[in-house]
Amino acid sequence: MKPKFLIFTLTVIALVWTFDVNSQSDEDVLKTIYTTSLTNGKSYDWLDHLSNEIGGRLSGSKNAELAVQYTKVELEKLGLDKVWLQPVMVPKWERGEKERAFFEVSGITNEVNICALGGSIATAKDGLSANVIEVQNFEELTTLGTEKIKGKIVFYNRPMQTDLITTFSAYGGCVNQRYAGAMEAAKFGAVGVIVRSMNLRQDDYPHTGSMSYGDLPVEQRIPSAAISTNDANVLSKALKQNKMLQFYFKQNCKQYDDVQSYNVIGEITGSEFPNEYMIVGGHLDSWDLGDGAHDDGAGVVQSMDVLRLLKESGLKPKRSIRVVLFMNEENGLRGGRKYAEVAKEKNEKHVFALESDAGGFTPRGFSFDCSDIMFSKIENWKPLFKPYLIHYFEKGGSGADIGPLKNDDIVLAGLRPDSQRYFDHHHAANDTFEHVNKRELELGAATMTALVFLMDKYGVNTIPQSAKIKD
Amino acid sequence: MKPKFLIFTLTVIALVWTFDVNSQSDEDVLKTIYTTSLTNGKSYDWLDHLSNEIGGRLSGSKNAELAVQYTKVELEKLGLDKVWLQPVMVPKWERGEKERAFFEVSGITNEVNICALGGSIATAKDGLSANVIEVQNFEELTTLGTEKIKGKIVFYNRPMQTDLITTFSAYGGCVNQRYAGAMEAAKFGAVGVIVRSMNLRQDDYPHTGSMSYGDLPVEQRIPSAAISTNDANVLSKALKQNKMLQFYFKQNCKQYDDVQSYNVIGEITGSEFPNEYMIVGGHLDSWDLGDGAHDDGAGVVQSMDVLRLLKESGLKPKRSIRVVLFMNEENGLRGGRKYAEVAKEKNEKHVFALESDAGGFTPRGFSFDCSDIMFSKIENWKPLFKPYLIHYFEKGGSGADIGPLKNDDIVLAGLRPDSQRYFDHHHAANDTFEHVNKRELELGAATMTALVFLMDKYGVNTIPQSAKIKD
Repeated sequence: MKPKFLIFTLTVIALVWTFDVNSQSDEDVLKTIYTTSLTNGKSYDWLDHLSNEIGGRLSGSKNAELAVQYTKVELEKLGLDKVWLQPVMVPKWERGEKERAFFEVSGITNEVNICALGGSIATAKDGLSANVIEVQNFEELTTLGTEKIKGKIVFYNRPMQTDLITTFSAYGGCVNQRYAGAMEAAKFGAVGVIVRSMNLRQDDYPHTGSMSYGDLPVEQRIPSAAISTNDANVLSKALKQNKMLQFYFKQNCKQYDDVQSYNVIGEITGSEFPNEYMIVGGHLDSWDLGDGAHDDGAGVVQSMDVLRLLKESGLKPKRSIRVVLFMNEENGLRGGRKYAEVAKEKNEKHVFALESDAGGFTPRGFSFDCSDIMFSKIENWKPLFKPYLIHYFEKGGSGADIGPLKNDDIVLAGLRPDSQRYFDHHHAANDTFEHVNKRELELGAATMTALVFLMDKYGVNTIPQSAKIKD
Repeated sequence: MKPKFLIFTLTVIALVWTFDVNSQSDEDVLKTIYTTSLTNGKSYDWLDHLSNEIGGRLSGSKNAELAVQYTKVELEKLGLDKVWLQPVMVPKWERGEKERAFFEVSGITNEVNICALGGSIATAKDGLSANVIEVQNFEELTTLGTEKIKGKIVFYNRPMQTDLITTFSAYGGCVNQRYAGAMEAAKFGAVGVIVRSMNLRQDDYPHTGSMSYGDLPVEQRIPSAAISTNDANVLSKALKQNKMLQFYFKQNCKQYDDVQSYNVIGEITGSEFPNEYMIVGGHLDSWDLGDGAHDDGAGVVQSMDVLRLLKESGLKPKRSIRVVLFMNEENGLRGGRKYAEVAKEKNEKHVFALESDAGGFTPRGFSFDCSDIMFSKIENWKPLFKPYLIHYFEKGGSGADIGPLKNDDIVLAGLRPDSQRYFDHHHAANDTFEHVNKRELELGAATMTALVFLMDKYGVNTIPQSAKIKD
């Protein structure tokens, strides 16, 4: 066979195949997508590299930059139409030497597992020692007032509510202690803050996460750390015996000037409406204690695989589909803001954005932030997902990184995996690769791809999204 | 307050409370059940003991008897109306000293992870060494015939199908290699059998499980072992290089005479129809390699907690509810058969049986083996379960232990947890307590309790189950 004839033949085969795939029933397309992900997925290998070869990827760190370079190269290998880096300035905070904490009871030293909260200042070089006052919430803090709080370490010990079915609701009910605990306690003269880890298990892992001093002047800022749930229980018990116990902790973290980093973006340009954009993404940065496999390595590799699975399944989207790997979700959201800012500057019309940032667990469905009219349309697709045990389609939040894109016309969505184990690992040293199951990860990637396919095929043009319900 | 008056007051309080609970809406009752399980469940503590204090509980072993005694005592503490042991003779097979296997390539010894299949004979004392022939299925075996198989070790290497969403379907498509591989290969003169582990992961754990020689005369029986998925891949690759490689394995297992054991049974006697029985159960025996936490420690402790949660929630069932902890599901099903046999002898009318034997993972729903008329009735309860993300109600199998109770009138059901990780652990050394998440286990117990409550309240009498659809 001559080369020219060979090329012709291959072109014909490719065209026939493309035609075949695009004329398939939706049921068949979804079957192809899921089968491809489960038999020929790339997400798990990518996650292995991100987790085990690179590791924790806090914004501004060397690892974060390695992750930028790695994912850019991997996206380039996929034969997308464009791959580029979008510059963004990000905060840089470093934990420094491992923290230490203990308290003494009857001459016996109880070592305690703590970790500095992201953004906290360090203690003095020799550490901080003070009495402890335990509170459940800010109201209690206010009731106690300066008299009882001044000079003490405030210990926030409100546990996550175990009877809520969705663990994110339990997190939402507790996280103000972590985020605003220091700024609130400092107002009453506290010298430090210890926060019960946002964890539904009883174990020894302290869970970090972002905190803020708000408008607090620099000289009033106090160090703030998370304590493991086991040690929170031990400390609380010890305080009941001896209110005057001395608690010592030392942390060595430091905030640096902002540094340059990047969102990583890849695009399949749309065949019919190239100027309408649909994005899938996760965040490339992670906390530093584990390797960030669930939060949010999983979302990153699933999003990358969405574009690859579309190509592998022979699908040619009508609109431009982008994967966006956002930098700095954890302690600044600079990547998400930058992406939306640039999209606005360039007057890019974004019609759909999907984020995966709830762990690489078995997918259950999606949460949608969109108009009622769009949501009722999307709900019609539920039967297509039933064979894959995807059942959860509810209105609600989507994802932090895509939030800045919100307007009246866009559909924002968040993948909703099973949430029961998420906070066992979230922001802790045990957020590691071995806790991600390959199949669960791949099912998530397929579920995202299926939604992107349907949104591209039906979701955007059939009903004008600007058509608002008037009544 | 005088004692008599105190008793009177307490009685009134108890009556009022019972009345309150039983007049609650179904939504409120389910809320109470789930909240109680998640905030005050016992299943996880019981599982900790079964797994970590007792461990693997193969029928006829010392551990199996410890598990019988432990669960009986724990059920007695619950204040049920009756707790008893139901005698049953069970097979006793012991693994003996740990197996060893290896093959040599270019003078380098490749150690291989194997384990004897349950019920297999041992190799000769010095082990067995032979050439290996790899096959995918019994058809291939037949095609090869005696000429090519005689004197060799047959290596069954058909993997579980990764694109099936429910992993039990993938298991169903493979398990005949394990169960009947030796009896089929022996017919063609094979001297031993090695079976790829029923595991969707690539790892180093061999997975045991039951096998049978069928009617094969004792002198024709050949030893049969499982090999880890990683080592199956290595062996397969090596065979492609060298068909004549020698494979060595040695196993030391032994079948003993049957021994006495027990099903453990507890009952809340029904307030209105004490002679109608509803049972919940799991199997108390497990394989010997791990501690049997998922298979089926989870089902055992969830079933125990169903009766406790009914009591804790103040519910007084109209029918008699029994928890049955079956002995010997893994390698004989003697407990399940005995329970059904005794029920028949005593003419006990069983109207409902629910088994949990698919791991302690997040519950997704139930599979029902019952008439269409009953199923359509049960489907009406789906909205009650929606807040708990329980969505799977399908007709299908139930559980091995309750299967012998099947008749035209009974409703059989199986709890269906998320199945993705089940075969990572099934019958292997990593089926251990730390792989069970407390919340997932407790959600399963609550989901079972909710179904038992509804079946007792609505499921049995409203539509006569003997009313068959005629057309």
